[in-house]
Amino acid sequence: MLSSRIVALDAMGGDRGPDIVIPGAALSSVRHPELSFRLYGDNTEVSRVLKDHPDLAARSEIIHTDVAVGMNDKPSQAVRRGKGSSMWQAVEAVKQGHASFAVSAGNTGALMAMSKLVLRPIADIERPAIAALWPTVKSECIVLDVGANINASSAQLCDFALMGAAMARAIFHVERPTVGLLNVGVEEIKGDEVVKQAHAWLRETADLPFVYHGFVEGDQIGQGLVDVVVVEGFAGNIALKTAEGTARQIAQYLRDAMNRSLLSRIGAILAQGGFQVLRNKMDPRRMNGGTFLGLNGIVVKSHGGTDALGFASAVDLGYDLSESGLVSRLRTDIEEFHGSIASRLAS
Amino acid sequence: MLSSRIVALDAMGGDRGPDIVIPGAALSSVRHPELSFRLYGDNTEVSRVLKDHPDLAARSEIIHTDVAVGMNDKPSQAVRRGKGSSMWQAVEAVKQGHASFAVSAGNTGALMAMSKLVLRPIADIERPAIAALWPTVKSECIVLDVGANINASSAQLCDFALMGAAMARAIFHVERPTVGLLNVGVEEIKGDEVVKQAHAWLRETADLPFVYHGFVEGDQIGQGLVDVVVVEGFAGNIALKTAEGTARQIAQYLRDAMNRSLLSRIGAILAQGGFQVLRNKMDPRRMNGGTFLGLNGIVVKSHGGTDALGFASAVDLGYDLSESGLVSRLRTDIEEFHGSIASRLAS
Repeated sequence: MLSSRIVALDAMGGDRGPDIVIPGAALSSVRHPELSFRLYGDNTEVSRVLKDHPDLAARSEIIHTDVAVGMNDKPSQAVRRGKGSSMWQAVEAVKQGHASFAVSAGNTGALMAMSKLVLRPIADIERPAIAALWPTVKSECIVLDVGANINASSAQLCDFALMGAAMARAIFHVERPTVGLLNVGVEEIKGDEVVKQAHAWLRETADLPFVYHGFVEGDQIGQGLVDVVVVEGFAGNIALKTAEGTARQIAQYLRDAMNRSLLSRIGAILAQGGFQVLRNKMDPRRMNGGTFLGLNGIVVKSHGGTDALGFASAVDLGYDLSESGLVSRLRTDIEEFHGSIASRLAS
Repeated sequence: MLSSRIVALDAMGGDRGPDIVIPGAALSSVRHPELSFRLYGDNTEVSRVLKDHPDLAARSEIIHTDVAVGMNDKPSQAVRRGKGSSMWQAVEAVKQGHASFAVSAGNTGALMAMSKLVLRPIADIERPAIAALWPTVKSECIVLDVGANINASSAQLCDFALMGAAMARAIFHVERPTVGLLNVGVEEIKGDEVVKQAHAWLRETADLPFVYHGFVEGDQIGQGLVDVVVVEGFAGNIALKTAEGTARQIAQYLRDAMNRSLLSRIGAILAQGGFQVLRNKMDPRRMNGGTFLGLNGIVVKSHGGTDALGFASAVDLGYDLSESGLVSRLRTDIEEFHGSIASRLAS
């Protein structure tokens, strides 16, 4: 399919718009020589940056629009007023088959609202989820939902398990990924009723397209115990942000500790190869890109404040998901299993 | 008051019972020469360890019981069958005025259930919360609830704010602590209705005994933006565990990175003073001790798997809280403000 090799980019999204999007696209274009780019945004601004990247320019088409969604626009406003915006058009391109995936570093709420409206959730899916890649001591795992579904129901948690497993299959290349349900460990209360119900359903459903591992706790995410961690959006978003904050905090401790004496400074210089490995491991740009799962099309949200390297990771992620046939696999899985899990609601 | 200088210890609690509790108490006893110890547990076992700590022994009284709560007992079982247990008696000692605070490294659920039953929540408090100390780049903050109140209501979140502020006043010695409400940052949805309602009440209530800062996100906890972070127990427990897991994960990365080449290893040896500072900063034993807030008495839960240093921190924490008059201050604050916040429910 030709469109699987075309990406639609919201060139105006993010804190710095084309100044990050275009160099980011250029980086990703080197890694994917067969990929073409549709760049939605202000012609003058996009061209100004694009002229420094002739190889990318040769594989790009600029589609001009002078409407852009602001980083602080309310989603409802953005949807009403942003119909012709660079963000809207990038998503619309996926819907129309002009591109197989879209990437935006713009306002998350607006992107989610537009994606839902334009691409529509896959049948039986109430709301799409946002899936994040999470580094682990082994490699990485997928955590969802990280913020789109506050107070998700038990049935939604089961759908997240199906969606996350389909994504894990696509990018980790394992046929039956392991899935865990994030829960608390205090004995007296061990999770609320919603989590317990989802746990019961997942345990009882036969022939799921993944291995259901059971409950996992917050400190087990980074241990890489499972390929997919399922959680309701409020706790998931807080977990993700808390992990990012903790990593930054420890990096700060480490810098302070290495600067405290001459000997430490000399040691740090000698060990700089090791520190570089550590920095690469902890580099949030490597994992940049939240995937909207459960839509009829692939949309990747890049962090708004990222740089070109981070934006390139988001494009790479979209490419991998698109090449793997994620959406059609997801449709099949949902069709086959959503019913068999949810039917327990009635029984 | 004499009892403010007596601690009741569940000598049998935790993964290793008296082998950790007694040496931990000995460490804390050096720091608090005016403190006496009531040790609840098996006389033979406690005496066996206590004989190696003559200074502590001189200030201790063993109260024998051969009933102990198991680490995996269900709270309801523990309450029914554990009436004479070391845990129960330690809590009961606070209630009877024989001690001003109790410390246990036993089963959290059982300890919470017994504490509630024996000490009772302060009037108007629905359920006590568990407060954790959280290291920040500045110093430390208090996060509550970390697991006792799944799906806490808006009114409960407001009570947590009052309770956390009282604790911050007690141990950070600030007259008007800053309090933030943990929330998600995705624009479209910005938190559920419960959090929004609590936010509105806290913003509107005049003359609160703390400065209400508004919403904070997960990555801001470790930055020390506020003295107290308020969150419902499910997300709070997940945030705490996730931060602990991330810290361990990065420590593992760091070890691997420093071992990857001879030069890194030499550098790491030269910088070992710096690494020691880092290790101290990240040492979870320094922050050991979850405080049960909202009861008519002070109960500190030590981590079950901690060592003597960690257990000593839990005793230190209980001592500070008890000396500061936390409970009576908390009663006054709840009496004065619980009504004025909650009255908005009706309006």
